[in-house]
Amino acid sequence: MAERAPRYAEDYQPGEVFDLGFYDMTREEILEFATRWDPQPFHIDDEAARSTRYGGIIASGWHTGLVMLKLMMRGFICAQTSIGSPGQDEMRFLKPVRPGDRLHGRVEVNGVRLSRSQPDMGFVSNTATLTNQKGELVFRMKSTSIFRTRPGMQGV
Amino acid sequence: MAERAPRYAEDYQPGEVFDLGFYDMTREEILEFATRWDPQPFHIDDEAARSTRYGGIIASGWHTGLVMLKLMMRGFICAQTSIGSPGQDEMRFLKPVRPGDRLHGRVEVNGVRLSRSQPDMGFVSNTATLTNQKGELVFRMKSTSIFRTRPGMQGV
Repeated sequence: MAERAPRYAEDYQPGEVFDLGFYDMTREEILEFATRWDPQPFHIDDEAARSTRYGGIIASGWHTGLVMLKLMMRGFICAQTSIGSPGQDEMRFLKPVRPGDRLHGRVEVNGVRLSRSQPDMGFVSNTATLTNQKGELVFRMKSTSIFRTRPGMQGV
Repeated sequence: MAERAPRYAEDYQPGEVFDLGFYDMTREEILEFATRWDPQPFHIDDEAARSTRYGGIIASGWHTGLVMLKLMMRGFICAQTSIGSPGQDEMRFLKPVRPGDRLHGRVEVNGVRLSRSQPDMGFVSNTATLTNQKGELVFRMKSTSIFRTRPGMQGV
């Protein structure tokens, strides 16, 4: 990807939508992640998972959340201006994510607020979603990303 | 740890508090996790991190959240009855978590609701927190865990 110009807090507009592209959920990565961080039987054990309501292995919701983060860093969060995040709201695992699923990411800007106390910071609230290859919404998260404001605008 | 008796949804009581013990945040794990999932400069690059407001490398908030999950699985989520989670609410990164920090986990049950439509399931809402070695609250998350209800109680 070509180097992009920095995108500052003021450059994000309420209502703006970012298409984040696709991510393929492999069985290998689902097992690797869950074994390390979320080793519940329905994430890591084929036989145990088959007898659950899920009918087979599903990805850890946290893994799906991190895929959302990776897609957001690819197409939404500007690495040159990002300062981090105060947290997430309403992280929802809406449908099981299974090995072989192809997820499509999207994020919409809900609001932009420049900090009064720290004028070099702006808060961009957003709703990020993942849809699977059947068009089913599988994941939704509301969060806030913090970006630097445009240089020279401080104290104006 | 000795095998515990299964803990069903009805066995969780509103107001009940679980001490989840400690977790040491190593520099190695902070770098490994962030390199894989959240490669922002203030998580992985000492020199770049020093010039930010954080003054040095800090853990990815998602990493801290997964440490919370691991501690919850150690002392709160019963592996024998857990069915997963519909998601998290109000995940908050309240203070930076740094290499060498020793985090202490705690979770409090906010409410227990047995499903009417699916009587083998109960929803246990909770607030989970991590405090560092200075006694500072660094992470807070509200979430809901789903557990199986006690066998034989269905349809009563």
